[in-house]
Amino acid sequence: MSRKILILGIDGYIGWALANELIDKDYDVFGVDAFFRRTTIKSLYPISSKEYREDQVYILSDDIRYSDILIELLYESPDAVIHLAEQPSAPFSMTHNGAMTTQSNNVLGTLRLLFLIKEHCPSTHLVKIGTMGEYGTPDCIIPEGVIPHNCLDDVWPKCPMSGLMFPRSPGSFYHLSKVFDSLNIKFACDTWGLCSTDIMQGIVFGLAHETRFDYDENFGTVINRFCAQALAGIPLTIYGEGGQTRGFLPLTDSLKCLQIAIDNPPPEGTYRTFNQFAHIMSVKECAELVCQVANDLGIAASIQHIPNPRKESEDHHYHVVTDNLHNLGYEPNLDFSSVIRDTLLTLIPYKHLINKDIIYPTINWR
Amino acid sequence: MSRKILILGIDGYIGWALANELIDKDYDVFGVDAFFRRTTIKSLYPISSKEYREDQVYILSDDIRYSDILIELLYESPDAVIHLAEQPSAPFSMTHNGAMTTQSNNVLGTLRLLFLIKEHCPSTHLVKIGTMGEYGTPDCIIPEGVIPHNCLDDVWPKCPMSGLMFPRSPGSFYHLSKVFDSLNIKFACDTWGLCSTDIMQGIVFGLAHETRFDYDENFGTVINRFCAQALAGIPLTIYGEGGQTRGFLPLTDSLKCLQIAIDNPPPEGTYRTFNQFAHIMSVKECAELVCQVANDLGIAASIQHIPNPRKESEDHHYHVVTDNLHNLGYEPNLDFSSVIRDTLLTLIPYKHLINKDIIYPTINWR
Repeated sequence: MSRKILILGIDGYIGWALANELIDKDYDVFGVDAFFRRTTIKSLYPISSKEYREDQVYILSDDIRYSDILIELLYESPDAVIHLAEQPSAPFSMTHNGAMTTQSNNVLGTLRLLFLIKEHCPSTHLVKIGTMGEYGTPDCIIPEGVIPHNCLDDVWPKCPMSGLMFPRSPGSFYHLSKVFDSLNIKFACDTWGLCSTDIMQGIVFGLAHETRFDYDENFGTVINRFCAQALAGIPLTIYGEGGQTRGFLPLTDSLKCLQIAIDNPPPEGTYRTFNQFAHIMSVKECAELVCQVANDLGIAASIQHIPNPRKESEDHHYHVVTDNLHNLGYEPNLDFSSVIRDTLLTLIPYKHLINKDIIYPTINWR
Repeated sequence: MSRKILILGIDGYIGWALANELIDKDYDVFGVDAFFRRTTIKSLYPISSKEYREDQVYILSDDIRYSDILIELLYESPDAVIHLAEQPSAPFSMTHNGAMTTQSNNVLGTLRLLFLIKEHCPSTHLVKIGTMGEYGTPDCIIPEGVIPHNCLDDVWPKCPMSGLMFPRSPGSFYHLSKVFDSLNIKFACDTWGLCSTDIMQGIVFGLAHETRFDYDENFGTVINRFCAQALAGIPLTIYGEGGQTRGFLPLTDSLKCLQIAIDNPPPEGTYRTFNQFAHIMSVKECAELVCQVANDLGIAASIQHIPNPRKESEDHHYHVVTDNLHNLGYEPNLDFSSVIRDTLLTLIPYKHLINKDIIYPTINWR
């Protein structure tokens, strides 16, 4: 019997790609989406209509904070709920209205989901997408979720805080909302015996399964935005020095990792964290890589440093433990050049559609 | 010129007592309250009407998440905003509806307040009441808010995580909401240069300035509940073994500490934490103390252990740093017996009003 997978946020960048990946592998997929993103930003890659997608997959339109539709789907006792139904933009969350929307949608949506899982399907595995940005950029090694027994610098045999959540230093009200989700989920697992994989995901880029592609200030992740800038013939804008170092992974790797999470649920009552990315790079290195790949394709690309609208360190330590996924067999695709090349080639036919006016940052953290 | 103090939640247990304490000391006090509590639970001590209080102090009725009234008050650039306008019950927060209400009210209310302070009075000192319950009961020393440079057991010269927020282990969705507030406030201070004192307050008990007195399952704090049980002639109910150890302080000490916070604002851009309580006791010791004081007054009081509705450790380490308030001159009142005695004597005339049906715990954490 095929495994039942409920995807919340199934119409999104990762959601739609994941749905198709799982359908191709004979999972029984159904989903929910509020279709917020379609009301604001148009995908550069021309995605299929809401109606077409609803014909392909069983999708219900819903805001998970309020409606009863989610309850009906949870009655089906899915093997896993993949929760992607969150407002994902850090810049948007730094406006007054955006912050309220983000923390209301994300925190209250996840909180309600926890209660509904407890009430209707307590054995269901909740796979939640958090972000590596929950941790910020501390001066020490970043463990997977919890402070390990051995101290973080391997010098001391035991940390007095071992077993506690590793302290988060998020950099926006969006990243804060993900931290709040993590704390609510851990509490629900500890208190009610739910089981969850909380994924601290790096920055995703590239395309898969005809999913959407965003490049604007709010919803474009950095490598995707650089690809769009290269295609539009405008400079790739690095915020500040570009020394900001992060974990990155191709969308196809994100799908691989999510399937690993789904196929290997933790024991009941377990809150588990995955630090999920393929490779660590600085923003400057990302820009240089996109430039090089674009130039190899005959697309003239250049780099411009602009004032950093964010408040973040541009020169910092970044050392992250990623054992959990590797121990479950994740083999990262480190050939980022090929992924960027494929992305550029796929998008060339649509490059005239790029709106150059929505790329440059207008929202300042301060 | 007297200092302008805006109290959010001015009609509450601490809010009304603080307003009167500050008015007596010639501060210029004004306030906001949504008057939620008056719609549900009746104070055992007969409090003055909403209208009477509005005659005494400039109070506006408002839900701080939504209305424009708060903006008008912040235009006055108060020297300090004392934020007490939060849903304060842990048991209530463990119900589905209660959890949603608590995290919506507390997290979104505080988030909006941060934006409004930034927009209208960025130099105002935000004094926020959090709870010692944010920390839970870890096996190590609890510092004041942030992991100190020296490791928590004084054995190691430097902690690799020094400077990061001390990891929180809250025990209910209410306590979680206070952690989320703390993280939002710290971020706003770090990012926008706001200044705030975030108070990790112990469990308050006793009376002052004709304020309300609650003793029910949801809103009665433990020593106050024990006093009501003694007065009602029913056993003082200890949840489980009663080894749960917490910091406690009389309401009059809470007022003293809040005045210290108001009179000693931190520098601009500073997020400061106070661990605020007078004395550490176990719940069993509290019950025994109330019994003894009651018996000395001729009130026959006894103790009954009942199954613990909460999920919490009943035998644990508890060692807390409380330097910040002591360095600013706080001298705790350790004579808890006298405070309990005064509380019982004040409430004797109203003991026939105690509703015994609302004391026993009905909400189970699991």
